[in-house]
Amino acid sequence: MCGIVGILGSEDSPYYTLLALHAIQHRGHEGVGIAWFENGTILPERRVGLVSDLAKKFPKVKSHVAIGHVHYSTTGRSEARNLQPFVINGMNLKLAVCHNGNIVNFLSLRRMRENEGSVFTTDSDTEVIPHLIASSKGDIVARIKTALSMVKGAYSLVMMTQDSLIAVRDPWGFRPLVLGKFRNLKNAYIVASETCALDIVDSEFIREIEPGEILVISRDKIYSERLKPADKRECIFELIYFSRPDSHIFGVDVWSVRIMLGRILAQEQPADADIVVPVPDSGLFSSIGYSEESKIPFAYGLVRNHYIGRTFIEPSAKERISEVSIKLNPIKGVVSGKRVVLVDDSIVRGTTSRKIVKMLKDAGAREVHLRISSPPIRYPCYYGIDTPSEGELIASSHSIEEIRNFIGCDSLGYISVDGMLKAVKLVDSSADGFCTACFTGRYPVPPEDAEFIKQLRLFRDDI
Amino acid sequence: MCGIVGILGSEDSPYYTLLALHAIQHRGHEGVGIAWFENGTILPERRVGLVSDLAKKFPKVKSHVAIGHVHYSTTGRSEARNLQPFVINGMNLKLAVCHNGNIVNFLSLRRMRENEGSVFTTDSDTEVIPHLIASSKGDIVARIKTALSMVKGAYSLVMMTQDSLIAVRDPWGFRPLVLGKFRNLKNAYIVASETCALDIVDSEFIREIEPGEILVISRDKIYSERLKPADKRECIFELIYFSRPDSHIFGVDVWSVRIMLGRILAQEQPADADIVVPVPDSGLFSSIGYSEESKIPFAYGLVRNHYIGRTFIEPSAKERISEVSIKLNPIKGVVSGKRVVLVDDSIVRGTTSRKIVKMLKDAGAREVHLRISSPPIRYPCYYGIDTPSEGELIASSHSIEEIRNFIGCDSLGYISVDGMLKAVKLVDSSADGFCTACFTGRYPVPPEDAEFIKQLRLFRDDI
Amino acid sequence: MCGIVGILGSEDSPYYTLLALHAIQHRGHEGVGIAWFENGTILPERRVGLVSDLAKKFPKVKSHVAIGHVHYSTTGRSEARNLQPFVINGMNLKLAVCHNGNIVNFLSLRRMRENEGSVFTTDSDTEVIPHLIASSKGDIVARIKTALSMVKGAYSLVMMTQDSLIAVRDPWGFRPLVLGKFRNLKNAYIVASETCALDIVDSEFIREIEPGEILVISRDKIYSERLKPADKRECIFELIYFSRPDSHIFGVDVWSVRIMLGRILAQEQPADADIVVPVPDSGLFSSIGYSEESKIPFAYGLVRNHYIGRTFIEPSAKERISEVSIKLNPIKGVVSGKRVVLVDDSIVRGTTSRKIVKMLKDAGAREVHLRISSPPIRYPCYYGIDTPSEGELIASSHSIEEIRNFIGCDSLGYISVDGMLKAVKLVDSSADGFCTACFTGRYPVPPEDAEFIKQLRLFRDDI
Amino acid sequence: MCGIVGILGSEDSPYYTLLALHAIQHRGHEGVGIAWFENGTILPERRVGLVSDLAKKFPKVKSHVAIGHVHYSTTGRSEARNLQPFVINGMNLKLAVCHNGNIVNFLSLRRMRENEGSVFTTDSDTEVIPHLIASSKGDIVARIKTALSMVKGAYSLVMMTQDSLIAVRDPWGFRPLVLGKFRNLKNAYIVASETCALDIVDSEFIREIEPGEILVISRDKIYSERLKPADKRECIFELIYFSRPDSHIFGVDVWSVRIMLGRILAQEQPADADIVVPVPDSGLFSSIGYSEESKIPFAYGLVRNHYIGRTFIEPSAKERISEVSIKLNPIKGVVSGKRVVLVDDSIVRGTTSRKIVKMLKDAGAREVHLRISSPPIRYPCYYGIDTPSEGELIASSHSIEEIRNFIGCDSLGYISVDGMLKAVKLVDSSADGFCTACFTGRYPVPPEDAEFIKQLRLFRDDI
Repeated sequence: MCGIVGILGSEDSPYYTLLALHAIQHRGHEGVGIAWFENGTILPERRVGLVSDLAKKFPKVKSHVAIGHVHYSTTGRSEARNLQPFVINGMNLKLAVCHNGNIVNFLSLRRMRENEGSVFTTDSDTEVIPHLIASSKGDIVARIKTALSMVKGAYSLVMMTQDSLIAVRDPWGFRPLVLGKFRNLKNAYIVASETCALDIVDSEFIREIEPGEILVISRDKIYSERLKPADKRECIFELIYFSRPDSHIFGVDVWSVRIMLGRILAQEQPADADIVVPVPDSGLFSSIGYSEESKIPFAYGLVRNHYIGRTFIEPSAKERISEVSIKLNPIKGVVSGKRVVLVDDSIVRGTTSRKIVKMLKDAGAREVHLRISSPPIRYPCYYGIDTPSEGELIASSHSIEEIRNFIGCDSLGYISVDGMLKAVKLVDSSADGFCTACFTGRYPVPPEDAEFIKQLRLFRDDI
Repeated sequence: MCGIVGILGSEDSPYYTLLALHAIQHRGHEGVGIAWFENGTILPERRVGLVSDLAKKFPKVKSHVAIGHVHYSTTGRSEARNLQPFVINGMNLKLAVCHNGNIVNFLSLRRMRENEGSVFTTDSDTEVIPHLIASSKGDIVARIKTALSMVKGAYSLVMMTQDSLIAVRDPWGFRPLVLGKFRNLKNAYIVASETCALDIVDSEFIREIEPGEILVISRDKIYSERLKPADKRECIFELIYFSRPDSHIFGVDVWSVRIMLGRILAQEQPADADIVVPVPDSGLFSSIGYSEESKIPFAYGLVRNHYIGRTFIEPSAKERISEVSIKLNPIKGVVSGKRVVLVDDSIVRGTTSRKIVKMLKDAGAREVHLRISSPPIRYPCYYGIDTPSEGELIASSHSIEEIRNFIGCDSLGYISVDGMLKAVKLVDSSADGFCTACFTGRYPVPPEDAEFIKQLRLFRDDI
Repeated sequence: MCGIVGILGSEDSPYYTLLALHAIQHRGHEGVGIAWFENGTILPERRVGLVSDLAKKFPKVKSHVAIGHVHYSTTGRSEARNLQPFVINGMNLKLAVCHNGNIVNFLSLRRMRENEGSVFTTDSDTEVIPHLIASSKGDIVARIKTALSMVKGAYSLVMMTQDSLIAVRDPWGFRPLVLGKFRNLKNAYIVASETCALDIVDSEFIREIEPGEILVISRDKIYSERLKPADKRECIFELIYFSRPDSHIFGVDVWSVRIMLGRILAQEQPADADIVVPVPDSGLFSSIGYSEESKIPFAYGLVRNHYIGRTFIEPSAKERISEVSIKLNPIKGVVSGKRVVLVDDSIVRGTTSRKIVKMLKDAGAREVHLRISSPPIRYPCYYGIDTPSEGELIASSHSIEEIRNFIGCDSLGYISVDGMLKAVKLVDSSADGFCTACFTGRYPVPPEDAEFIKQLRLFRDDI
Repeated sequence: MCGIVGILGSEDSPYYTLLALHAIQHRGHEGVGIAWFENGTILPERRVGLVSDLAKKFPKVKSHVAIGHVHYSTTGRSEARNLQPFVINGMNLKLAVCHNGNIVNFLSLRRMRENEGSVFTTDSDTEVIPHLIASSKGDIVARIKTALSMVKGAYSLVMMTQDSLIAVRDPWGFRPLVLGKFRNLKNAYIVASETCALDIVDSEFIREIEPGEILVISRDKIYSERLKPADKRECIFELIYFSRPDSHIFGVDVWSVRIMLGRILAQEQPADADIVVPVPDSGLFSSIGYSEESKIPFAYGLVRNHYIGRTFIEPSAKERISEVSIKLNPIKGVVSGKRVVLVDDSIVRGTTSRKIVKMLKDAGAREVHLRISSPPIRYPCYYGIDTPSEGELIASSHSIEEIRNFIGCDSLGYISVDGMLKAVKLVDSSADGFCTACFTGRYPVPPEDAEFIKQLRLFRDDI
């Protein structure tokens, strides 16, 4: 769960990179990093915090090219060392790398490089990529090709050299990556995780980077090379939850998929109720779809505080004051005495849903029927979504009825895997090739070994 | 435009006060202050920034009583001196005061006290209140009564002494103020600008402080005194825009008033269109009402970035990058090719509406019909809403058609003053006695003189 | 223990004020404040920390006049409220005040003003001064005169109005205050606690402000008024310890008094020893005098770390690591095997001397003979030096032999009161009229009452 | 110009490391770094600023072993990336490295490793050391031996593994490195650049690490290995200027060498004068020696402000306000009308001496005779002292008379190279084997090539 950006062609590339990172801040709000060229050297700036925290203190720097990264979760102190971009400041090779995804064979690749004397300074799976590039031969594109031919797993990458911006998607295409062109600047390009990052810098969407594509952008030309192809496996959870609704990725508008998921959900899991209430903002579009399909009126019954309140929760106050209660407030007048269909995008541990249901009941809701626009999440993701391990995924060890009982709602209904895939097809009949591993356990690229899974856990917070 | 909170009865009153201030952060996001008792002395802590910024560094303090304030606008450097609470650390009187509103005769009151040798350290109208109390005679309630009998204008107040919490609303009742009781603490009370502040600390709404009421809460008793009565004039703009939709003030649910405003607006200002799109979040509920009444489908066509981005706007980039474009993004797939009814709560200068309309047109909207759930704002507010002076209020000097032309929309329609008042009546038939001065120029308590109006301007930012 | 500065006549007065405050930072390193005029209003900036901390973040402000203050000791949280300058931002009177000293009748004056309805916000004795000025009649100088005629105790003041800088010393002249003129700016003046503040801004020493003088400096004229005269009582401890050695105050060079104190000390308290070692830097000049007089060679046996290390002392480590050991280190090769005369300026509690003596003995010193260039401090100061209360002054309850035993030195000798006064006379035969209350208990202006003494204690840290 | 520390044997090793770094802060005040073990991983913390800045925010961490570094000069933004310690967080090798010195063949070593695919992230010469260790074979000591056999130049190193602390000095012994043992902790050791770092943590000086020695300290044993020997070349500038006077390095007390340098200087460069005045604190001990030898009285004529004032110098004010005038102030009464011998340790560019001489003349000194306790610095240092390049060293292109004329003193005298070496011999007759390259141009280990010298320049500020 990270977001990446690269920009080439404006003297203000660092500034535009920060703006674009701000637009995809939802992909990672724990850390931020940016790199640019200055006097022939790559300078990085990486901080724990929000993009706006970095922007506040950021010096005015000029660079023809820049890349940046927002980072999801950092546990504990000193984890600044795991922040991206990663940098090679070699005498003959200067390269910066930002990565979104998860490399499932990074431990054996790392062991290989360490045996050759390479020095790794972090625990991040990403670090192996610059090492493999540095130890490959040929021009930079050849080196990238050789390096990535060894890498398995999910990787959308933006990289920069002194005179080029390079974007890569793994052959399976797990994570999104899109190309845009500045409207008012000649030959200025942006590559980013989502199209909403293009909009904020007034750029036009050109196309997606294709699975297995290496796109090289320099001042005077753009060209592509290809990695060895594989079956496309785009992450369907990006459409359900992770991407912003105003983004266009994997060939579809995210918002329209979500409305359609809500419609199918209403068909598969109808409810006898008075109003449809979204969990803001994750359940917003699917609740609109549910309402449209079911003809049950849409009602805004939970209000979200726009100011972030994580600083407030003292351990001693945790019983009465939760992060949920600081963020959400029910509108009594809307829900009181009503049979409510509550729509959300997913259930991970069930604890948040439980608090929201209790909140609605305390506010007078007569019944709460929880409807989820994704199937039960039963398996951990190895490709970049920070789901917890199986033991903590409530659906991996509990029946629907047990989950309903834990959450305390009157009924609980998930969309089916088939329904989910059908929803995407209804938006774009050619949509195909999704990774559904977290629902089905069918991993397109199996994780390397037990140690990888353990290592992965070290980077993950409670969600 | 400020928010106030006071809590008595828990050792954690300072902590709960911060939480409650966070819930009403929308009433003022430039500065925050809190005061409590420690070793028999009032200690204040005031900072430019958000409540969460203060909370992050706030020491663990214990005090049976605490009050706090969020402050709207501070211009330029060193304005920390105008932040509240105001404090009297006298040898015989220790009192802290937080104020929401605007005192229209504060200059002559201040002149009177200065003539008696009192020292004023700020430019704030609020400072005169502790001075009048300090120079009055009798017990604390008598002093407050004497002091406030001289004060004209809008004032909701929370005050604390060593052993009591005191809440006051001016006789006209311009600003809201509500009383709550902690659910799980015995004899613990909260007074706050809005009920959403009660919810976050798990308190039950008891009732509103009444216009002209002085409510005194101590450990063992609660009682009221009355100021000289006046005609009730509650600020209707609180219902239209300023209060949170999940709050209950002036006897009505804010959200339900907004939905009704949208319905009446649809009746008065119909549009031939395909979708109703809200400006998030200010136009959300009125757009739902508009959609319900007009039967034009509701569609979520503008997405709001939840992360605050004010730090980004470099002067040099202002032409291309505006605060609006950093905060809002249109969903092309929703609006493209559509005739859009865009619903918002108000127009001040017109510049923001203009940018949003352009944004929708650039995203392919065929027509944009702007509908506003308040009448044209033609007159400045002297009672605590930070509207700019007449010269900058577009509606004070332009016809509707001129405004439409400036904004660039295809049609423009405001609700009427009668329609607005009718909407509130439809929610609560007994609702009455509102201040509509910003629409009608009928000021219930005329401002003192030209100097006051000039002084007022010094405190106001561009909105 | 504070330092004050005022500058008039340069557009950069705020900047020069910070520089001058930096030069007298030794008079107070806990807090700093500055005030200037901007758009006809006084803006203050006050912070806990060093002058350089404030300077780092200080905006570039222009003002024809500015005053500033360094503050000695602030206990605990939120004490920022006690920092100076104090400000009157009245409609007809704008005045800022900085004070060095201690007002012994401030409680009764404050009570008087509070009875008239004045609002005090701090616990500081200084706050009564602006209140008395605000409640007096006439032009500003008449008001100051009336106000100060009521005030008893020590006060050196700098004040500013829109067009003037005003400097006052109390009739006893307890604290120093000097006047300088900028060398390269026409009609630009500086008033400061010590002449070293003049040097740093390239100003020429003109003369001292005289006891009882009110000096008014404006763009076009300088003139003086007089308070009712009293017997001069300049603080001799400024010469012994508090002022910088390169300053010239009370008509004498501080360094030369200290050398002379060392000489008389050598006469009165000779020692049979091999080397004279100063406690840096407080004992530096007196040790040079001691060495010159006694013919015992001067040796630099204790090195001071120039970097401030207060942040280091964890409570748990306090046994092994003290502030003394972080600041000072003995040079073994210098002191080992030697009989050392250790010279310092004073003993307060004796704990620091004890640690230094132990340090020298651990480094191999054969004997340590402690010589003190002031008489035993037996009584608290009520005029602005932060000595602790009698109970904590080791000399108020212990004999010399008991103190020697506690400190662990081989012999201990103080200069006599007569010897001390003689030393000053030898530098300037006309020198006369010193306050020696801390040594003799003869208070020139008796403290008001027990409450004052208690109140005073609240502001004092452990030294 | 850096300082290094390593501690093993206390749970509070990180805390003690910070304390010890504080004691050698004079070796580098631009940046600080520390590394320790936590849950089997090396965690580093590196910041631009002082040790006390880091200490203020440093979390309480426990680790059996820790190392740290103070860094001299960092130019411009983002140079945090060049701060030490360097870390290997490999799967089979976890190692942190701190370095004081300069590796003259690092570019060719780096090129060699880069050709093998190693990734360098900084411009620092130090980074090559962990790379060479990582690519060597055998146990950790064997790897270090192999690695360092390739390295030419100056390197004192402290390194840590999970269970050991390793200290190394290059075969020439350019930079100092000493071993101490905690007095009150069993089997707890400290290695540091200077003995003053041992004193602050209450440790006993055991011995110096010898040139070419690899000392390995673990919980249960201490042993040494040797690198291939070379002729000893200890940096004489450490004795003249760089080390603290209370340190004992290279077999001698630093202070006593400096006093002897002053004596020889008085013999070689006598002056007809009234007083000897030191430039504090660099000229303190040599001026005492000069005074003793010449019988001209020692006088303290320049006072140093103990508070750091670099923040003050606005570009616009630079003409009138210099860093020298903020730091030093002459005592008029001491120098006025006097013929002054001004003693300092060295002249680099001459600009600082020029300002001090002017300062003394402005204060009334009749004559100023500048005496320097080192020979003229004519050649850049390639072994870790940040002298500027030849072009900026005034003595490399100007005669003594030209320098005198530039500085504006009445006479100028340097000690001779022979006199300097004789002074050390007089303190310890066995003292031998010093590097005098900066005076003589005789480089014991020639720099690799022109690129190295250019690279070196990038790291150096104006001194």
